[in-house]
Amino acid sequence: MLKVKALLFDVFGTVVDWRSGIANEVKKIANKNKIVINANDFADAWRAEYQPAMEEIRKGNRSFTILDILHMENLKKISSRFGLDKLSSDDFDLLVKAWHRLPGWPDSSEGLNKLKTKFIIATQSNGNIALMVNMAKYSNLNWDVILGAEVVGHYKPEPEAYLKACRALHLNPEECMMVAAHDDDLKAASLQGMKTGYVHRPYEYGKDKLFDISEVNDYKGDRSWDFISKDLNDLAYQLGC
Amino acid sequence: MLKVKALLFDVFGTVVDWRSGIANEVKKIANKNKIVINANDFADAWRAEYQPAMEEIRKGNRSFTILDILHMENLKKISSRFGLDKLSSDDFDLLVKAWHRLPGWPDSSEGLNKLKTKFIIATQSNGNIALMVNMAKYSNLNWDVILGAEVVGHYKPEPEAYLKACRALHLNPEECMMVAAHDDDLKAASLQGMKTGYVHRPYEYGKDKLFDISEVNDYKGDRSWDFISKDLNDLAYQLGC
Repeated sequence: MLKVKALLFDVFGTVVDWRSGIANEVKKIANKNKIVINANDFADAWRAEYQPAMEEIRKGNRSFTILDILHMENLKKISSRFGLDKLSSDDFDLLVKAWHRLPGWPDSSEGLNKLKTKFIIATQSNGNIALMVNMAKYSNLNWDVILGAEVVGHYKPEPEAYLKACRALHLNPEECMMVAAHDDDLKAASLQGMKTGYVHRPYEYGKDKLFDISEVNDYKGDRSWDFISKDLNDLAYQLGC
Repeated sequence: MLKVKALLFDVFGTVVDWRSGIANEVKKIANKNKIVINANDFADAWRAEYQPAMEEIRKGNRSFTILDILHMENLKKISSRFGLDKLSSDDFDLLVKAWHRLPGWPDSSEGLNKLKTKFIIATQSNGNIALMVNMAKYSNLNWDVILGAEVVGHYKPEPEAYLKACRALHLNPEECMMVAAHDDDLKAASLQGMKTGYVHRPYEYGKDKLFDISEVNDYKGDRSWDFISKDLNDLAYQLGC
């Protein structure tokens, strides 16, 4: 494992808690506008539009479009369902940018700082540059470099998304480890020759949807990752940081 | 000035001391190979090929090519002049990558950390992503984001280089300040609406070519920059960090 020089991170779900973050942000804006809302349902509904929107781009039906624009379009689609269609233009924009203000998991900032002492730490997210930079400032995520999105011009799990990120660092895929809480992301990275680090995030979809790390450890098929960790501090410990 | 949200930095000369860095690196490699070399002359000669190589790309005679490749080609051009044409392939590559191992000026790391508390700090250099990331790790330059080069696909001082960097951050040019030790860079940024911060680097071309900051202050033509600073700590102080 000493060959690994860079850790490339999935961000939504792996490093930040998008569901609580979006729920808290929409609550503030809804309260201000005296709108009653189920904030968790809203967060899930907005996130549900995420993959279908990117899929149009992956299929080649649409040219590469940054996530801030997809989030804006997706919010328009679901806003009337949640009584948010009467928001002012300013509040609507503030809500679109809620993705720039997501909180890290409790271990994220500290764990990244430890990992940064020994490795290049990079985002390899579908989030655009401005989103990633603003989120990093907001939640104290000290990335060495923002990759993914505009830098690679492809959305994960397309192979080019991973390969171009490694190439931007002038590293071979086996010198890069994809770090993610999601099997599909790790599998796609692994198929391109990258090393893999799984991070357990049982609360990504809320406490009622908790799952146990033993499910991951017990699974011997696709989930044969190089590292399986409880959180980023644990990953740092396992990697000798 | 409170509108400024991001500082975009020129790097070679402004943040790192390329001349001493290259001279020290070539000395090591030359000594190992028992080659006698005037290391400062070599650094100047290599750097002299920098602008002409990029100019071909700016003129549209060549597609965008990263600086590591231009450095490699330029080294080939001048190597026989300095007795370096018999280097092994490994030593040649090590020398090409000397630009990844340049030292910051004494104030650079500390000054950037201060500026980072209040602003997004970004590279807006012609250096490619891998070069910038490796240099940052080597010299403890804690950038929030690496812009320039591949991210913008244009070499400074082309207008698009500045405009695309601001756009990547979703900021208007007037919300971004170009920070550089070079008037041409600041002038080009200023013409696109960016704010300007001059940093005095009298030793960039060696101590024998020292010039005084009064030359800058006294000049009332193109050099009417928003901030004129002695170094990055001074700039941080002036910006209230």
